[in-house]
Amino acid sequence: MKSLVEIHPWKLIDRDFNPSKQKQAESLFSIGNGSFGQRANFEEDYSGPSLQGSYIGGVYYPDKTRVGWWKNGYPDYFAKVLNSANWIGLHLRVNGFVLDAFTLPITNFYRELDLKSGLLTRKLTYTLADSTQISITALRFCSMANEHLACTQFSITTNRPCSVEIEAYVDGKVKNHDANYDEYFWQPLRADASQNHLELEQKTKKTEFHVAYSLDQAWTVINGIESDTPSTSKTNEFAAEKRTFNLQMNGEISLTRFVGISSSLSDEGDNLLDIAKQHSSNAQIQGWEASLNAHILAWDSIWHMADVVIDGDNAAQQGIRFNIFQLFQTYTGKNPKLNIGPKGFTGEKYGGATYWDTEAYCIPFYLKVAEPEVARQLLLYRFQHLDKAIENAAKLGFKEGAALFPMVTMNGEECHNEWEITFEEIHRNGAIVYAIYLYEKYTGDASYVLNYGYQVVFAVARFWAQRVNWSNDKKQFVILGVTGPNEYENNVNNNWYTNYLAAWCLKYGIEIANRISDLEHKPLPVELQEWAHIANNMYLGCIPNSDIFLQNDGFLDKIQSLASEIPVNQRPINQHWSWDRILRSVFIKQADVLQGLYFFENHFTTETIRANFEFYEPRTVHESSLSPCVHSILASWLGKSEKALEMYLRTARLDLDDYNHEADEGLHITSMAGTFNSVVEGFAGLRLTEDGISLEPRIPLHWNALKFKLNYRGARMQFEIFQDEIWASMHGKSSLTIQVFKEMLVIKEGEKRKISTSNIASNLN
Amino acid sequence: MKSLVEIHPWKLIDRDFNPSKQKQAESLFSIGNGSFGQRANFEEDYSGPSLQGSYIGGVYYPDKTRVGWWKNGYPDYFAKVLNSANWIGLHLRVNGFVLDAFTLPITNFYRELDLKSGLLTRKLTYTLADSTQISITALRFCSMANEHLACTQFSITTNRPCSVEIEAYVDGKVKNHDANYDEYFWQPLRADASQNHLELEQKTKKTEFHVAYSLDQAWTVINGIESDTPSTSKTNEFAAEKRTFNLQMNGEISLTRFVGISSSLSDEGDNLLDIAKQHSSNAQIQGWEASLNAHILAWDSIWHMADVVIDGDNAAQQGIRFNIFQLFQTYTGKNPKLNIGPKGFTGEKYGGATYWDTEAYCIPFYLKVAEPEVARQLLLYRFQHLDKAIENAAKLGFKEGAALFPMVTMNGEECHNEWEITFEEIHRNGAIVYAIYLYEKYTGDASYVLNYGYQVVFAVARFWAQRVNWSNDKKQFVILGVTGPNEYENNVNNNWYTNYLAAWCLKYGIEIANRISDLEHKPLPVELQEWAHIANNMYLGCIPNSDIFLQNDGFLDKIQSLASEIPVNQRPINQHWSWDRILRSVFIKQADVLQGLYFFENHFTTETIRANFEFYEPRTVHESSLSPCVHSILASWLGKSEKALEMYLRTARLDLDDYNHEADEGLHITSMAGTFNSVVEGFAGLRLTEDGISLEPRIPLHWNALKFKLNYRGARMQFEIFQDEIWASMHGKSSLTIQVFKEMLVIKEGEKRKISTSNIASNLN
Repeated sequence: MKSLVEIHPWKLIDRDFNPSKQKQAESLFSIGNGSFGQRANFEEDYSGPSLQGSYIGGVYYPDKTRVGWWKNGYPDYFAKVLNSANWIGLHLRVNGFVLDAFTLPITNFYRELDLKSGLLTRKLTYTLADSTQISITALRFCSMANEHLACTQFSITTNRPCSVEIEAYVDGKVKNHDANYDEYFWQPLRADASQNHLELEQKTKKTEFHVAYSLDQAWTVINGIESDTPSTSKTNEFAAEKRTFNLQMNGEISLTRFVGISSSLSDEGDNLLDIAKQHSSNAQIQGWEASLNAHILAWDSIWHMADVVIDGDNAAQQGIRFNIFQLFQTYTGKNPKLNIGPKGFTGEKYGGATYWDTEAYCIPFYLKVAEPEVARQLLLYRFQHLDKAIENAAKLGFKEGAALFPMVTMNGEECHNEWEITFEEIHRNGAIVYAIYLYEKYTGDASYVLNYGYQVVFAVARFWAQRVNWSNDKKQFVILGVTGPNEYENNVNNNWYTNYLAAWCLKYGIEIANRISDLEHKPLPVELQEWAHIANNMYLGCIPNSDIFLQNDGFLDKIQSLASEIPVNQRPINQHWSWDRILRSVFIKQADVLQGLYFFENHFTTETIRANFEFYEPRTVHESSLSPCVHSILASWLGKSEKALEMYLRTARLDLDDYNHEADEGLHITSMAGTFNSVVEGFAGLRLTEDGISLEPRIPLHWNALKFKLNYRGARMQFEIFQDEIWASMHGKSSLTIQVFKEMLVIKEGEKRKISTSNIASNLN
Repeated sequence: MKSLVEIHPWKLIDRDFNPSKQKQAESLFSIGNGSFGQRANFEEDYSGPSLQGSYIGGVYYPDKTRVGWWKNGYPDYFAKVLNSANWIGLHLRVNGFVLDAFTLPITNFYRELDLKSGLLTRKLTYTLADSTQISITALRFCSMANEHLACTQFSITTNRPCSVEIEAYVDGKVKNHDANYDEYFWQPLRADASQNHLELEQKTKKTEFHVAYSLDQAWTVINGIESDTPSTSKTNEFAAEKRTFNLQMNGEISLTRFVGISSSLSDEGDNLLDIAKQHSSNAQIQGWEASLNAHILAWDSIWHMADVVIDGDNAAQQGIRFNIFQLFQTYTGKNPKLNIGPKGFTGEKYGGATYWDTEAYCIPFYLKVAEPEVARQLLLYRFQHLDKAIENAAKLGFKEGAALFPMVTMNGEECHNEWEITFEEIHRNGAIVYAIYLYEKYTGDASYVLNYGYQVVFAVARFWAQRVNWSNDKKQFVILGVTGPNEYENNVNNNWYTNYLAAWCLKYGIEIANRISDLEHKPLPVELQEWAHIANNMYLGCIPNSDIFLQNDGFLDKIQSLASEIPVNQRPINQHWSWDRILRSVFIKQADVLQGLYFFENHFTTETIRANFEFYEPRTVHESSLSPCVHSILASWLGKSEKALEMYLRTARLDLDDYNHEADEGLHITSMAGTFNSVVEGFAGLRLTEDGISLEPRIPLHWNALKFKLNYRGARMQFEIFQDEIWASMHGKSSLTIQVFKEMLVIKEGEKRKISTSNIASNLN
């Protein structure tokens, strides 16, 4: 698979401009700072295929639901993150020609995203019809040091005298590409333009989120003069400053823009514009260099903790860093109103809303590499939505405080509307509880679950207790009419993953009930007995005479073919087969039974995990971005190194190599957390044991080393795994015991210890 | 249940105007003539809730599909019958007051639809703020004698001198209530207005159906004078003639409109307007009385054959006549391009398109009461769509000429877009073959299947042969991922009805293959062997240790409650329960297993039918209009007279009594055929035997008599069933043998014979 970008340990570089790949490149080179972000659209005009995209975290619009046939229980609205004002735009004319890379010949194209510094650079040379050559350099970053700030620097040089007209604008008249009724979601408030300064205020329709932009613009010219008085123009949603220059040979114009962005989601009060102005003008006072340096320092401190070094495989190295970079660009844990949209700030698909991806994939990532507060913010996000989840369940007929968290949400309300997902993909409820459980396991901090989380746990347990029914036929409890993680089966009975997770939730609920002191909310003994009765009598299907769990009832009626038998030109099947054919087929979109074995690996023997992996993996087409990482981890555990690496590259480089032909729509942000987990849980074999951690590293043979850090219960650990030895060091605790393969080892504060030299090879498959 | 209309054997009468029931009344009092029709909207202005509706059979627009998430295989368009020009409209002012029954006090309200004559009458008296009283009488019919003609007569009387302004218009600027993107579907061509004449031409966007209207208007005034010169006005889609009058005490104005309607669907050539004009002016020359008489005569000849007399139960009598009336208003069999929309000309829901209702319900009706050509037209309609059905199947991955007829269609293309229906409710394919089979059974005419139908039969058999798969688990052929007639289960495996019907289609295909002489299209022996192999090894689920067939896999895992346990305020469940809850519940929307037992009753013993009926009926909520009739028939067969009557009234008076709270949207036209079948197949116990018919009458005890006629293989039979005797007569054949209960009886041409006096009672349950 030919990637758009060169292989490089720290950078994405593209030297070969290809208009048919521009949308994909716009996704890959996206930048953001957790509060806002944007696709790597060009500053100057570009008339080729492009997906203009600039997004502000958490600012959403409730787009009226669009369905074929309405079904009771459907939500009325689908909250969508909004495409927001374009604050990078320039209209650029030289000698009267519009600079447009789609229509003019260009050379010396160079586009770079430096993952270490978070700086986007683009260079290219336009050749005009009159042979004038114009070279541009565009730099851009969304400050990780200041969540209100972005800076751009755009410079032009020319090989001969020419006249240049630059209109630098901020444009609020933008539409969502993904809008059900083709409406504008923004309402103009005001815009203003003066020399060196633009400003814009807008609010969203219905939700009334208020957003303000302040742009301070600094112009310099070398070997040239301004040929006219600067002019400004504005409407109520557009503001621009236009300047014209006569450049000499080797002339240069440079425009630096300091952009302050403030929104009512993040800032309080009525003076959002003042806040935005303060940030843009402070940055201008400090200047480009200082602002950039602060940004780079912020990235440094993230990388200091979160970097993963893969020595000896630059493609793998680039993949993991790209994934970590995108995750932190999307979510930093600073704002409890934010969560992690599947596409982050790189596209509109899936509405920028919260899915179970957050709990199943992202929280385990942030728990490992960031302060516990980050994961805790994500847990609190759901806690704040508990009342709405109870309302949602009530709407579907559940009682007594049972909660069904939405499949997709911006504000706690369900905003997905396909019945087989909305009403039936209920396993999401279990993942939310599982993340609460994991938080305590990783951090050792019981305060969250005992003070807040237990309410979520009980409400979810109540949901499961009502959602099961006793089957007279099976003489066990069953869960009918669900969609499992494998969305290539809809409305099935007894999805093993869902049933297992539901039973676990009930047991965990009992455990928490026995630990909490909040007597008012504590379930009565009779309720706890019912939970235990259900959990102990849950139907869990098995393939007869095997250790293989049955994904769902009826699975064995299918034609048992393997994914390898699907002709290449029919992959991905979701782009080639009709939906009914996909549903009838045995092919699995993403880990389903295996997702359960991954979550609860300590409940099963390796042989059981192996039997299931060997049955299900060959039937899996991995057409969800969330699939390969789980398979990579399990493959590592089972010593299937080749498969583990194949799956790792598929998750780490999913977008870089565009496996699923959809990177143009945006990146798969949430699955990037799975990439990290594949490295740390998979190759390094990290597992949480009853009260500690264990490591069973099995790194690919061509890797020289794998190095990463890990937060665990107040300790900050560092591991360096080589082919024949492991080094570990630890800070933050006086000592910590870890298990490496079968050996128990004590590491002391500050000590860097070589753990093992011989055990690795002997434990490799 | 309080009906809107009075009980009357031949009429719908409503004396009690209730604005909250106006939409329902507009549906019930709808009129049509098989070519076009309209809801019973008022001529004059009405500002209350109303569903304006005027429809021209077969004139459709491909409305762009609207879905939440697109799935491969979805059709791009949903063809919809169009709301078309309003040709009854009047703006009416008296002393400057707009006559509007929603805002003015009204008295003496009377609305009548005479089923015998097909004449709609409405009277009411308006009282103005100045105490002037205006009485109006509005008469209307869509001519059954002339498919291009409709006539209206509107007259006004007053109790005191007043000034009256009447603007009589034709208005083409109408929108579908049911439009996915709120577009106008009509494109104006021209309109014109002159004294006593209006005309309008329009065409549909995209499909370019051309429609022309010509209105000849005759005005008379008694005790009054025209106070001003008549004036006309027009736009390109609206034309009107306005007249003003000064009326004296007891003055009267009358406007008679002769409306000619022509469409490119029914008429050839470029002169549609000329055709329309010819019909309106001819009618005007003949006058109102003659036009009305011709219309009544046409109805007489329909009633002569199709009437059903129920003596002793006027509610039942009204129900069956209303149903027969609406069926013939909707479809007359004259035009091979037309079919029977579920709502006929009474509403927009379901797009006016063709469903399996036609084959499963309507064809058996028309076979009994109309010439064989009518049913044959309906069969040819599908035959003409065979190529598109093959294309449709190919789109879903089927090969070698397999056909999947669409779930919903106007032109042969699928235009439904919910995957669980569109792709999975494939039993429709079987009903289409079943109707071909029935045609020969009823008519004795093998020429249709041997000359045309066999191609449909083979293409459907090929579909089933590919749609099954061998289950290694069950060691039989299974059909996975279907939706049966019970749409309250989606995406199930091994729906018994579907599996049984599929196996039958394959066997019927083999039988036809052995009879046809068209060697070119005859399947090869190897294909026929495969069909037999599948048919003989089809999995057909059973409830263990019983004669009860299993509706689908997993049905026994459900909580086995009964419909009687659902609280009344939660009925219908489709208006109260979320979709997932409905799917998980045991409740059945409409006959499913029982539909199969109805189709193939001679394959099963009475005891098997009884066991299934007694299991499934109590679980059935009858929330499809197609459900009660099948249950009524089976109940009759099983001697369950009370249940049979209950179900009969539910189908016969479904809309009259508005059981499902949706008559406002339009009537359930196709299920009305089921009403007729409930009487003739149910109460009279008509069944087709191997080569004849049998009768097992069991009429409700309070009925004095049931009388009906029947077409059977060239014979026209007439039956009069009393509580203790049966009279039969026959024309068209020299003699015919029929079986009544266990007795074989020969009836001769022209003879009226008392068949039995004692057998009935002894055979009653």
